[in-house]
Amino acid sequence: MIRDIINENIRRIIPYIPGKPIEEVRRQSNVKNIIKLASNENPLGPSPKVLQAIRRSLSEIHRYPDSSSFYLKRKLSQVLKIKPTNIILGNGSDELIDIIIKTFVKEDENIVISEATFLEYKIIANINNRKVIPVPLKNFRYDLTAIKKAINYRTKLIFIANPNNPTGTYVNKKELDDFIRGLPKRVILVLDEAYDLFVDVDDFPYSLNYIHNKNIIILKTFSKAYALAGLRLGYAIAAEEFVSYLEKARQPFNVNSLAQVGGLAALEDREFLKKTRKTVLEGKRYLYQALDNLGIKYIPSVANFIMVDVKKDSFEIFKKMLKYGVIVRDLRQYNLNNFIRVTIGKKEENKKFIEVFKRIIKEEKYDYCSKTRCNSRSDLSYY
Amino acid sequence: MIRDIINENIRRIIPYIPGKPIEEVRRQSNVKNIIKLASNENPLGPSPKVLQAIRRSLSEIHRYPDSSSFYLKRKLSQVLKIKPTNIILGNGSDELIDIIIKTFVKEDENIVISEATFLEYKIIANINNRKVIPVPLKNFRYDLTAIKKAINYRTKLIFIANPNNPTGTYVNKKELDDFIRGLPKRVILVLDEAYDLFVDVDDFPYSLNYIHNKNIIILKTFSKAYALAGLRLGYAIAAEEFVSYLEKARQPFNVNSLAQVGGLAALEDREFLKKTRKTVLEGKRYLYQALDNLGIKYIPSVANFIMVDVKKDSFEIFKKMLKYGVIVRDLRQYNLNNFIRVTIGKKEENKKFIEVFKRIIKEEKYDYCSKTRCNSRSDLSYY
Repeated sequence: MIRDIINENIRRIIPYIPGKPIEEVRRQSNVKNIIKLASNENPLGPSPKVLQAIRRSLSEIHRYPDSSSFYLKRKLSQVLKIKPTNIILGNGSDELIDIIIKTFVKEDENIVISEATFLEYKIIANINNRKVIPVPLKNFRYDLTAIKKAINYRTKLIFIANPNNPTGTYVNKKELDDFIRGLPKRVILVLDEAYDLFVDVDDFPYSLNYIHNKNIIILKTFSKAYALAGLRLGYAIAAEEFVSYLEKARQPFNVNSLAQVGGLAALEDREFLKKTRKTVLEGKRYLYQALDNLGIKYIPSVANFIMVDVKKDSFEIFKKMLKYGVIVRDLRQYNLNNFIRVTIGKKEENKKFIEVFKRIIKEEKYDYCSKTRCNSRSDLSYY
Repeated sequence: MIRDIINENIRRIIPYIPGKPIEEVRRQSNVKNIIKLASNENPLGPSPKVLQAIRRSLSEIHRYPDSSSFYLKRKLSQVLKIKPTNIILGNGSDELIDIIIKTFVKEDENIVISEATFLEYKIIANINNRKVIPVPLKNFRYDLTAIKKAINYRTKLIFIANPNNPTGTYVNKKELDDFIRGLPKRVILVLDEAYDLFVDVDDFPYSLNYIHNKNIIILKTFSKAYALAGLRLGYAIAAEEFVSYLEKARQPFNVNSLAQVGGLAALEDREFLKKTRKTVLEGKRYLYQALDNLGIKYIPSVANFIMVDVKKDSFEIFKKMLKYGVIVRDLRQYNLNNFIRVTIGKKEENKKFIEVFKRIIKEEKYDYCSKTRCNSRSDLSYY
């Protein structure tokens, strides 16, 4: 039997379920005017400067990509004020997670993660037949004390998504400093900052300060604020020696040519980034207000998405919203069964989301305000 | 020390050295009019229909790719007359090699490969801490008898590149049939057919016939005849059950959106494929003739490249050619120290390669014809 020659760790993998693409909804239903608020993409679409740069380089796609990503790394190093040799690029951060695990974690070692966080840490660890130790969140935030307790003599890596997905919460500078101080020397901390460009609080840590004298690897992505999710481009920043080993675990042509060109152009368009931030922060204010008015609870977020407490099976809410052409994300995969995650979109998208939500509340005839503090602003102390 | 927390198998990796990009040569020297015949790319550049399709979809690159690659798989399944569920797509074949190894090979199992073949089989196996058993070629061809002897009770995978890179030789239908017949049931044979679209012999196996009742996985790529090396797109074909497990080891967004769109358009442009084949086959005839005239020996090839016997350190020849603006591949990485590999290019590129080669022969004052059979056509019996 075929089954018998498959590695057991692979057989057991439960695949990641991505946000539903607009095109798929269109194909499978007769819903029109579909908006997608399911994958924390940039609602503005790609920067026109990126498109221009890509168009110019299209005629060279028959050539293999530059394996060293010379120009993109040079630009990144200028923007971040680090060396090109502090940077490794990946086919999205996903691939870098794989590379990091392969480089540091032996077959009998483990990885500490949070229970409700980006799912790929666990999936990619398991694909590599590495164990993860999941630690529960506390009040929807990373419980760093519990994480520290979970570390054992076989722990090699810790993944902290900061801000965290899907909660939108974050670890502040003081918490992170204290946490890092107590880490065993052989343990490497990966800070996944996919959403850092949306952060609007003052006590968020500036993690680049850590890489020179700590075992810290920072993950960043072009999929969110830089609006290049379709091109696949992520990067990791770490001490040069770390990067030199990570590079050995990288495939030579992992980053496609257009991602290199597009990433470089995206870094140069600071205006686009500003506009993106403005859109997201204004959208967040609008959504907070509208949800507060409806008496719907949510977890305050420093990212470009909001986790909303729908107080019943979120898959049902997801399906109902889909019928009205709004794609959100139910959080069953994260065992947050009564929550949906909604990406902050453009003005009109946020408005449509709220309208559809209102309609569903009416149809469902259920009272979101039944518990406590209806019409009051959501905060974590509610939970 | 950082070194101590790095996995040993990663520390030992000797990275793949890609063909030098034109841009890199330009940056590092004052050579003008550079031609690259180093990475077996399609000399015609991408199909205009591919560029058109990509241009049309650029505005959607802020969205994550379709994780299921629905349209590309559908098209591929129509072209190949198989089911979409017989196909898995990768970020180039490189990634599929990684996925295949993770899915089938346990930590204590091994992989049989050839000594002089595509280097990534060994590198990716080692990155995954899996052992390879390299088997010498015989007369520059796969030695299937020796490969069969090398299989032991811990062998799980065999990689056969057909046609083989860098030799350009192939395993014919009868040889493959005989080989497959005797394989142990738990062993999976991966046939890497990256260059199959250039084959011009009648006894090349039609491997799709095997997938339904044998443990066979076929690898194909869009990087060569389809001229999409920069976009990164490869695929594997196998029995549905195999594919269902391989899919579990795949990251959800491994294939970028433009590769999906470009791949689909490339499949539709049959004229481009015809033109490509014509260019390569005519170029091959020209190069054979010109090398024969110079008395230079080469290995007859069924692919879009020729392995040329330069009878001295090929790195020296490589560097000399570079000075004249011709990038070829020295084969030191393959322990074929006296051979270069030259990609069959456009008419004028092939001509320039021959001219430069002539000039070097003159400068070097060494006599390629000194051994035997000068001015006679090269064939394998020479070796």
